[in-house]
Amino acid sequence: MASETDKIFSEFKEHSVAEFFKKNRQMLGFSGKVRSLTTIVHEYVTNSLDACEEAGMLPDITVEIKELDKEKYWVRCSDNGPGIPQKHLGKALGMMLAGTKFHRYVQQRGQQGIGASGNTMFSQVTTGKPVKFESYYDKKKVAGELAVDFKQNRPVITNETVEETDGSRHGLVVEGEFAEVKYDRSSFSVFEYIKRTALVNPHAMIALVEPTGERLTFPRSIETIPPRPRQIRPHPLGIGTNDLMEFARAERESRKTSSFLQATFSRMSAAKTDELAQMCPEVDFEKSPKNLTWDDCEKITKAIHSDQVKWIAPETDAIVPIGQPQIEKSLQSILAPQFMAVTERKPKIYRGGVPFVVEAALAWGGNAGKKAVSGYNSDIMRFANRAPLLFDAGGCAITEAVKSVEWKRYGIKDFENEQITVLVNMSSVHVPYTGAGKQAIATEDEIMDEVKNAVMEAARDLQRYLHGVTRDRVRVERKKAIMRYVTQLAADLAELSGGKIKAEELEKKLLHLIENKYSNAIEEDDSGDGNIEEEISSQEEEVNE
Amino acid sequence: MASETDKIFSEFKEHSVAEFFKKNRQMLGFSGKVRSLTTIVHEYVTNSLDACEEAGMLPDITVEIKELDKEKYWVRCSDNGPGIPQKHLGKALGMMLAGTKFHRYVQQRGQQGIGASGNTMFSQVTTGKPVKFESYYDKKKVAGELAVDFKQNRPVITNETVEETDGSRHGLVVEGEFAEVKYDRSSFSVFEYIKRTALVNPHAMIALVEPTGERLTFPRSIETIPPRPRQIRPHPLGIGTNDLMEFARAERESRKTSSFLQATFSRMSAAKTDELAQMCPEVDFEKSPKNLTWDDCEKITKAIHSDQVKWIAPETDAIVPIGQPQIEKSLQSILAPQFMAVTERKPKIYRGGVPFVVEAALAWGGNAGKKAVSGYNSDIMRFANRAPLLFDAGGCAITEAVKSVEWKRYGIKDFENEQITVLVNMSSVHVPYTGAGKQAIATEDEIMDEVKNAVMEAARDLQRYLHGVTRDRVRVERKKAIMRYVTQLAADLAELSGGKIKAEELEKKLLHLIENKYSNAIEEDDSGDGNIEEEISSQEEEVNE
Repeated sequence: MASETDKIFSEFKEHSVAEFFKKNRQMLGFSGKVRSLTTIVHEYVTNSLDACEEAGMLPDITVEIKELDKEKYWVRCSDNGPGIPQKHLGKALGMMLAGTKFHRYVQQRGQQGIGASGNTMFSQVTTGKPVKFESYYDKKKVAGELAVDFKQNRPVITNETVEETDGSRHGLVVEGEFAEVKYDRSSFSVFEYIKRTALVNPHAMIALVEPTGERLTFPRSIETIPPRPRQIRPHPLGIGTNDLMEFARAERESRKTSSFLQATFSRMSAAKTDELAQMCPEVDFEKSPKNLTWDDCEKITKAIHSDQVKWIAPETDAIVPIGQPQIEKSLQSILAPQFMAVTERKPKIYRGGVPFVVEAALAWGGNAGKKAVSGYNSDIMRFANRAPLLFDAGGCAITEAVKSVEWKRYGIKDFENEQITVLVNMSSVHVPYTGAGKQAIATEDEIMDEVKNAVMEAARDLQRYLHGVTRDRVRVERKKAIMRYVTQLAADLAELSGGKIKAEELEKKLLHLIENKYSNAIEEDDSGDGNIEEEISSQEEEVNE
Repeated sequence: MASETDKIFSEFKEHSVAEFFKKNRQMLGFSGKVRSLTTIVHEYVTNSLDACEEAGMLPDITVEIKELDKEKYWVRCSDNGPGIPQKHLGKALGMMLAGTKFHRYVQQRGQQGIGASGNTMFSQVTTGKPVKFESYYDKKKVAGELAVDFKQNRPVITNETVEETDGSRHGLVVEGEFAEVKYDRSSFSVFEYIKRTALVNPHAMIALVEPTGERLTFPRSIETIPPRPRQIRPHPLGIGTNDLMEFARAERESRKTSSFLQATFSRMSAAKTDELAQMCPEVDFEKSPKNLTWDDCEKITKAIHSDQVKWIAPETDAIVPIGQPQIEKSLQSILAPQFMAVTERKPKIYRGGVPFVVEAALAWGGNAGKKAVSGYNSDIMRFANRAPLLFDAGGCAITEAVKSVEWKRYGIKDFENEQITVLVNMSSVHVPYTGAGKQAIATEDEIMDEVKNAVMEAARDLQRYLHGVTRDRVRVERKKAIMRYVTQLAADLAELSGGKIKAEELEKKLLHLIENKYSNAIEEDDSGDGNIEEEISSQEEEVNE
């Protein structure tokens, strides 16, 4: 046994997170040629939008793509954001799990500290080249080349230069060469990604220079800077025993457990800590938080989650949804639908205390939906913190929630084949992505329910509209059917009357009657006020007869 | 600008991979209470099966689960494998991205070095407790408790003891307490997971002791140890420029590029390196591999992938599929279907050179399919290297390939609502999982095609069978229809004949005639030999008339 066991474990090795993602690059979204290129652009654009938002600036972002060789492209992304200071550039672009976003409780598109470093990794792996950067800030221009040392997960900067500037320019430029990628305009492409990003970021100007040289500009449709996302303290209902332990161990200022709790969590008043203290007589709320045991923390957590304690809902001004007018404006300009309905819901929480807001919109007719071989397919546009989710639709809470809606109840007989676009945006301080590629939202019950409710709310508006449309259509069909027989009927009646009635006159009278009847139909029909669906289907049956 | 930029980056921090997965535990499969418990069992059982396989042992694995409190369970997994040596225990159970599997080119269930450490993390985060271990090997028993230091991604071992034993026992026992989990018997449960694991590992004995105390044993159905997976050298078509660079830099033995290539890759003969050398006149194949530049490697890689060079297919004896007889035996014992078809395909490659084998089976009738509110739904059982994939079905290559089959062509009119189970197992030295939770296979074209072909091959057998079934059914229906009128017909004819024919006699004769006709029907029908589908549908129309 001995030698066998030793032999098996003779190859025991440790690996860096950079090596892990290099080998499993599909987990970062680098799988498939078109998708890989979209992932590259996604990571850079996301960072640019976040940086501008945090600095309170209106983003101007330009993405340029050139074809170098078969399945080999040059990508450059430049923004007018705050730039990145010299000492942080390496880690920001060449070290995985390093960044400003990972540990903060604030709404941002990026949240893992992998994205841009993943791009650097992909450039190295596919072309052997580092990426190039220029950072403009503080009357300085720092430029250079940057690679990842995979074994150490450390950045390697070369050819770095620092120049003085007049300070008029600020922002970041990153460019790199990438192979095993492909540019097209399919539904998973850079083009679609940027179009959708523009759709939900009406305050951003985004330009795309395609490999053909064509320049597409998605201009700003609003000039107001969205409120800057604010970092908030976590809500007590959102934490578990382990979180409480970690906060307690890291505490530097509060001397007592009671003051620590008030300083650490939102909605935690002195009265609330007293209430908790009474519920946990075994825990000494006067002692230092550093001395809290797991057992203590477990008791406090249980008290927090007990039905006896009522909590004020989480602060929500840290969450910045897109807003109904912005969504309407964007949908109108991009899809020009025949009808649209937008719902803006109140903040909710998931996992007990993580606040989030769902916005949903339905667009029907016009350029909504996806063109299919015959007719149209429905289209679900998913967004998280205003970033488009193009991939992994299958396992996403948004897709599953939208598909779980009983569309028939809202007059949509076959949702899959309807000319309809459903837009859903989830905003939160922490979006529970299913993978590091950030393309799908985990199917948490509260999120699923909220998305479904938001979509159903919009669907009710659509139903009302469609009821009108259907009725109009039914009326037109009926009229047409009768019209077809009017001339014959008039002639027949004229003959029957033995010449007493003139066919032409009768036809005129009949036509007049029909016109009147069908233009007054709305008022008459409405007086009935029965079940809308039944009405529609019985009307349709009439037409078919 | 200055202060603003500085402020934004003042919170720049680095994080360990353990912290990353602690915050994003859903990426490891820890989302949802039932799923989390299944993930725990999955990681331990997978490790046990891999260890036994590598040591050439028939696995005996016991999983015990007890309910400690509401949504809090105790889980213990013990095996009869080789055990883990003392010096590796910490890293194996308490350090992410450490292990024997990550860097090896060999077929295994685990391949990332995260699993068991993820369980330790989950125990700590939900209950504050370390896991306990006992490792039996080399006439020794090493026992202790183990936690992860998240900040450092390092194991912390406490209360470790080492005892001498008589060496009769070997294997590993791990137990831990886990909260925020739930036990049930749903389709995503531990129960289902173990049932499916047993299905594709007929050489393993797996026992599950449920929280109720009930002990379920899935006995071995074959006593032969499957061939031990062999580590193979990578195939040239499976590597990119970067891989070649890394191999070249790590090379310690070969002095020349030509000998390095032959030593590193499979199917790389001296003749092949000569061929490559001729195609890359700029590259000196006599120089040390250490001096190869990216440019050199790119040229060599391009030559390798050019159409001019013909390669022998990858070695495939390193891949150990389940095997047709084993699958049939397992399906029979677990689903007892009315019909089944199993296809075993030849090895294929994806991404140019990673070998894989797909096996597919269809089971129809019996206990196949999933019971639904009314009737049945089809069931797709996915496996990768004999480990069940229960979650994230939506984005998985297997699901998408199975759904892309035109089932109607095979006599399955409505696949979703058919009482059918489709089993697919992909075996490979590297399965391209979409996430660290290892629950879905990336939709690589070659894998999709191969799965589809394997399933269609099995579907053709099913079609032939169903044709028979339909014909039988049609015959029975026809017979029944005629039988209903026989008595009346006989009486009517008797009356018409004016008493010359006796009704009873005629009825007898008619019945005899019908019996004969319908038992000889198969031979007669077969002589027609037209399009099977048309035949079926025309027969059905006859019945309907």
